[in-house]
Amino acid sequence: MDNKPLILTVAVLGGTGKEGKGLAYRWAKAGYQVLIGSRSPEKAITASAEIIGLLEGSGSVVGMSNPQAAQQANIVVLTVPYAAHRETLESVKDVLKGKILVDVTSLSVPPMVTKVQMLPAGSATQEAREIVGEGVEVVAAFQSISHKHLLTDEDVDCDVLVTGTSKDARAEVLKLVEAAGLIGWDAGPIENSVVVEGLASVLRYINKQYGSTHSGIRITGVSRNS
Amino acid sequence: MDNKPLILTVAVLGGTGKEGKGLAYRWAKAGYQVLIGSRSPEKAITASAEIIGLLEGSGSVVGMSNPQAAQQANIVVLTVPYAAHRETLESVKDVLKGKILVDVTSLSVPPMVTKVQMLPAGSATQEAREIVGEGVEVVAAFQSISHKHLLTDEDVDCDVLVTGTSKDARAEVLKLVEAAGLIGWDAGPIENSVVVEGLASVLRYINKQYGSTHSGIRITGVSRNS
Repeated sequence: MDNKPLILTVAVLGGTGKEGKGLAYRWAKAGYQVLIGSRSPEKAITASAEIIGLLEGSGSVVGMSNPQAAQQANIVVLTVPYAAHRETLESVKDVLKGKILVDVTSLSVPPMVTKVQMLPAGSATQEAREIVGEGVEVVAAFQSISHKHLLTDEDVDCDVLVTGTSKDARAEVLKLVEAAGLIGWDAGPIENSVVVEGLASVLRYINKQYGSTHSGIRITGVSRNS
Repeated sequence: MDNKPLILTVAVLGGTGKEGKGLAYRWAKAGYQVLIGSRSPEKAITASAEIIGLLEGSGSVVGMSNPQAAQQANIVVLTVPYAAHRETLESVKDVLKGKILVDVTSLSVPPMVTKVQMLPAGSATQEAREIVGEGVEVVAAFQSISHKHLLTDEDVDCDVLVTGTSKDARAEVLKLVEAAGLIGWDAGPIENSVVVEGLASVLRYINKQYGSTHSGIRITGVSRNS
């Protein structure tokens, strides 16, 4: 549909956490250049060494500070807990212009992790857009993916809903979803992010209620090849 | 888990609409006494005759005004468009005490039917709770079920997420879900209704985007028999 060159460099901010490491592993394996960002460059370097170990030699993963990683990447993926959301965005916003920011954060403040919490902006992703300002495409994705399956090569039985500021940006992020071995869906404008993020709380509730650790969703009634 | 008698009388307010008729048909077929409510008792009587026709003789469906239906039922299901939400609730709130109100409404005001819209209360279901006041259990469910399949005996390839003010009320509504031939999940407290309702907008977006008329969701990673 579009003839843009494949975007090759992805920064994973907060990439020393479980979710970030899992996504970084999958993308490095798919051939992306991956930059792990952290507040602590030392921790980022340790995490990237871990991921390289799992990759058995093939794949490029480099650790550095969050701003350095964001500066060098085409797509910047934010995987920090909500408590570090604003601070991390403030630390990188000057280098995000013209890029795509993928926000994996959902507002989940313990102990209320199974109850949807609302922000004045609506969702964490909409709050991110307010923080980074104009000129950055902001997309929500990957909130409900169980990190346990990402670091192995297991199939992940959960679709990824992708919402965000433009259809082109969502299409780019859908390529990242596919590269991670997952099935993704364009789920509409950034206003729909409240559903994408809130679903993570609902699935945690279902996990607790029905004794699972990795409930997810599948979209039905639509051809997966369209 | 509980020894309450099976609740047998269900009122479907706005039951002359497609969604309401579909649910009424399924519940009458399952042996519930169904009361169709409408602002126009004449239209309610016509709709109930239609449903009785489909049932081929077995099943009890009676048409009447919304307040009469709400008065006589144990569970009251609201299937009106959002534009009639407040007015319908005001017309029945005096007879709801001690009952369960199931809100099928989601905030979807044309032409923005594929974009999640927020209310000061959060969701339509939370707004309903504000209107009906204390002493009524308020539950959200069935927003994303395509009415096209309900009036036939087709399998519906979409799970039902049930959120609401108490676990007992959600359990009662899960019985109605099952009676309608659907698979339901306790999806947590009423604050989670924003996800259940917003999902309807997201699925309409996916329908439009991927050329479907009946996209839905399935919960994965949890045993369906638990």
